[in-house]
Amino acid sequence: MSSQFFDRHSELLNQATAAIQKRGYWSAFAEMPSPKAYGETANSDGKSAFEAHHNRLFDLGQPKGVGHAGQEVSPFGIDLGTTYNKSDLNVLFPAIHEAAQGWRSAGPEVWVGVALESLTRLNKRSFEIAYSVMHTTGQAFMMAFQAGAPHAQERALEAVAYAWEEMSGVPKTAYWEKPQGKNEPLKMEKRYRVVPRGIALVIGCSTFPTWNGYPGLFASLATGNAVVVKPHPSAILPLAITVQVIREVLQDAGYDPNVATLVVHDADDDTAQTLSLRSDIKVIDFTGSSNHGKWIEQNALQAKVYTEKAGVNQIIVDSTNDFKGMVRNIAFSLSLYSGQMCTAPQNIYIPQDGIDTAEGHLSFDEVSSAIGQGIEKLLSDTERAVEVLGAIQSEATLGRIEQARAFGDVVVESKILIHPLFPNALVRTPILLKVNANAVDTFSREHFGPISFVVATKDTAHSIELSKRLAIEHGAMTISVYSTDLEVLRKVEDAAADAGISLSCNLTGSVFVNQSAAYSDFHGTGANPAANTTLSDSSFVTGRFYVSQSRVHL
Amino acid sequence: MSSQFFDRHSELLNQATAAIQKRGYWSAFAEMPSPKAYGETANSDGKSAFEAHHNRLFDLGQPKGVGHAGQEVSPFGIDLGTTYNKSDLNVLFPAIHEAAQGWRSAGPEVWVGVALESLTRLNKRSFEIAYSVMHTTGQAFMMAFQAGAPHAQERALEAVAYAWEEMSGVPKTAYWEKPQGKNEPLKMEKRYRVVPRGIALVIGCSTFPTWNGYPGLFASLATGNAVVVKPHPSAILPLAITVQVIREVLQDAGYDPNVATLVVHDADDDTAQTLSLRSDIKVIDFTGSSNHGKWIEQNALQAKVYTEKAGVNQIIVDSTNDFKGMVRNIAFSLSLYSGQMCTAPQNIYIPQDGIDTAEGHLSFDEVSSAIGQGIEKLLSDTERAVEVLGAIQSEATLGRIEQARAFGDVVVESKILIHPLFPNALVRTPILLKVNANAVDTFSREHFGPISFVVATKDTAHSIELSKRLAIEHGAMTISVYSTDLEVLRKVEDAAADAGISLSCNLTGSVFVNQSAAYSDFHGTGANPAANTTLSDSSFVTGRFYVSQSRVHL
Repeated sequence: MSSQFFDRHSELLNQATAAIQKRGYWSAFAEMPSPKAYGETANSDGKSAFEAHHNRLFDLGQPKGVGHAGQEVSPFGIDLGTTYNKSDLNVLFPAIHEAAQGWRSAGPEVWVGVALESLTRLNKRSFEIAYSVMHTTGQAFMMAFQAGAPHAQERALEAVAYAWEEMSGVPKTAYWEKPQGKNEPLKMEKRYRVVPRGIALVIGCSTFPTWNGYPGLFASLATGNAVVVKPHPSAILPLAITVQVIREVLQDAGYDPNVATLVVHDADDDTAQTLSLRSDIKVIDFTGSSNHGKWIEQNALQAKVYTEKAGVNQIIVDSTNDFKGMVRNIAFSLSLYSGQMCTAPQNIYIPQDGIDTAEGHLSFDEVSSAIGQGIEKLLSDTERAVEVLGAIQSEATLGRIEQARAFGDVVVESKILIHPLFPNALVRTPILLKVNANAVDTFSREHFGPISFVVATKDTAHSIELSKRLAIEHGAMTISVYSTDLEVLRKVEDAAADAGISLSCNLTGSVFVNQSAAYSDFHGTGANPAANTTLSDSSFVTGRFYVSQSRVHL
Repeated sequence: MSSQFFDRHSELLNQATAAIQKRGYWSAFAEMPSPKAYGETANSDGKSAFEAHHNRLFDLGQPKGVGHAGQEVSPFGIDLGTTYNKSDLNVLFPAIHEAAQGWRSAGPEVWVGVALESLTRLNKRSFEIAYSVMHTTGQAFMMAFQAGAPHAQERALEAVAYAWEEMSGVPKTAYWEKPQGKNEPLKMEKRYRVVPRGIALVIGCSTFPTWNGYPGLFASLATGNAVVVKPHPSAILPLAITVQVIREVLQDAGYDPNVATLVVHDADDDTAQTLSLRSDIKVIDFTGSSNHGKWIEQNALQAKVYTEKAGVNQIIVDSTNDFKGMVRNIAFSLSLYSGQMCTAPQNIYIPQDGIDTAEGHLSFDEVSSAIGQGIEKLLSDTERAVEVLGAIQSEATLGRIEQARAFGDVVVESKILIHPLFPNALVRTPILLKVNANAVDTFSREHFGPISFVVATKDTAHSIELSKRLAIEHGAMTISVYSTDLEVLRKVEDAAADAGISLSCNLTGSVFVNQSAAYSDFHGTGANPAANTTLSDSSFVTGRFYVSQSRVHL
């Protein structure tokens, strides 16, 4: 019975493991919120399910807690009113340890089977999750659906595939026969057991609670760890639904649901720190601020720690034979979800003497203005603009936009848009500032949100040197380059490799540097301060379990 | 030219990667120091080569240093008189960085090829290395040869095989085509590059400089890192020869030899700490004391740190149908290299009411005495005894033997033996002490050297509980159990898995709990304080490199 889910999804697993090896395009879940893929009533059902969470207690049936928490407010202006039970850690953790006992001995097939069944059930709740992601993060619906549901599920499946590949690479038994010259050979049977590290903690972020949270959550679950999910206080609901689904699957598989638990807390208390320092927390996945992430890396030494923190992403403009395509692409990358992505570009390096294009030489100011106009054009229709921009997730980001104009010459001003459907939504267009390369103290910091800089550099060699140094010192997830010169592309590729940044070359169509595709694009390298790990590769999973062995003579 | 070594050894690599997957018996290098395997004059040539190092400077041709170091004294009573150039780190590291430039872009085939060629050349110098291991560590010749040369080479090859498997699992390119409904699909080419973390540091130990040092050294080298080897001041020569061979191979492959360097220092200075904290040291492999290892784990946060520290290994005696075989096996395990192995047993748990055997019930005292007599019988012939015991490596271990008799009732006293060939050798037979289970403060500490305890427990359940608790709290590499009861064996297997200890069941023949076989036995789990890693598995290699990627439209 307990490996029925593994059998049910074995083909899905085979396809996913083939995909991570080949790294071409593949997907398990439909990315379009279409009735054909999800059913005629999926959208309205999902919306109703989301609304049913409003103004009530979301009860996961976890051990008795102490009071309630939950003050999620939609950046689109809706007060969710959902509350959650606060856990008493002194009651919760004994229950988790008890649940973990049975789970740890269930073995890789069961762990992976439960993870896969959970993902397919989560996929069926994609609309409900999409609306919860939208109304906690401020993502426009399409992004909330894609990044929050199917793409997050793909990233989780990818991590499960890596976990399975590494675990199944260890045989369960081996026959060992060592020749002894003329004597009888030595013969032994060896048994190997994959053992989870213990209890894993997932610390969620406010902008991509599922996309960033799922890989660690599912990698830990699929390697037999009990998982404690601690969402950001402003984005609880998507992870609450997730934990609910996993708990249901665990029960259906005959395991204690407390293998997966949710710990909610009030904003600005020390729950994350308290959990991170527990001696029984052996794995931590964290997405969030650099300060907090670094603190965990330096203090939670009892655990394997995987962090994604802040970074400064960059674009090098050297030359192009599709200037309009370049401008369109950059304008979209700067505008998408108002720059509130860990992969969104912030600094655009342009030589002070301008660049060569198919339309002739363009000055620095001409290129800067064109990008500014590209943003204005993209967002000229408010109804369409809000579907690109979404809403501003936090007051802190609003504040940063306000302060930004002091940092340089304004190329394009940030404007307030009134959302046609949500009049209270916090919608802002990006601000683009012009600075000199010597303003490095300004643009080497992350200005999270729709705040970008066009930076006048001496030349492209300078742009490359600057981007590499910034990535190594301050961290970066992505870099993008526009050049018609193969030698320049080669140099940027070398610099990006050294600095551990994902490189995109000459994006002028409908692939954007902000986007990374599961099974194909590695997200982060762990080689610069933006992250200490990769979503996902082997190193993302191998620390979550160990192999114990026993041997006996035959 | 630069991948010629890879081509030359591709069959060796294929066999090694097959071996780590199947985990049966396999070996690349002959473990017997026989003329048939190594050549008629190999022994005398190796001895001469070893002696040629005496009383002279071992010059690796590294960048100009500052004075000399080296005061190795053989535990068998010979003053080696070998000296080494001390490095000026301010001169050495710039040279390493320069060498690392070319090396990091050479790619996996070249890295692995150089590692494999180095190992086959090291194998040819096995006798020279064996004598250097013998006369720095105090191992008897046979162990110095096997563990110091072929077995160390196998452990290195195993690590290289894991590195290759993980690196070659990442394709160099991928074609990504995403359907776009009725529109043209999106098409991209993606390129992936394996990038080493940076400069790796290997901190060697005094008892197994090659066996414990090679896995990290070769795993780092085979993943493209430059490697700085810092031997223990009392066991430099084996690693100096190793670095010399690697530097020769690097040059033959067309690379800067400063990819592999040796840093020697005077005893008790702070070179290890200084190196460990350098921001350009990104990987550290450490074998040594718990204090030093823990300090590195807690302070060298810029690096991936792999440690093997101290532990308390244990034997549970429950019942047996081969009492004599059990006694012989335990006596040998306690005596081999005078217990100076990280895998040697220290505590033997025996129920206070005795055990059942094929010869009937035996009391606690009868079992204890039999083990004591087994030690005396094994070591009754001095000429044979010294080939089992070797010599005591350090004054500190001699001191511990002296102090040990205060810790319990002496079952067998430690005796001084006069080595027939080396009259100044420090040879001591093991001391075996009888204690109660409530003397846990005494036997839960590691007493490194030939010091063991028979511990009277309430019953076998108590023995299991005690061994598991000790391993989790104080660390352990191995555990061994004797029982005819399948239920007991199952319980010990569960406890060992939980505590992350390698288990051997009913060893009564010529396999010993101290020994672990490359490609088949995992050494350490990282799940208890004795080690934070495994020699070798995937997790031992995946942190040493990252994958950078670039993508471009087609």
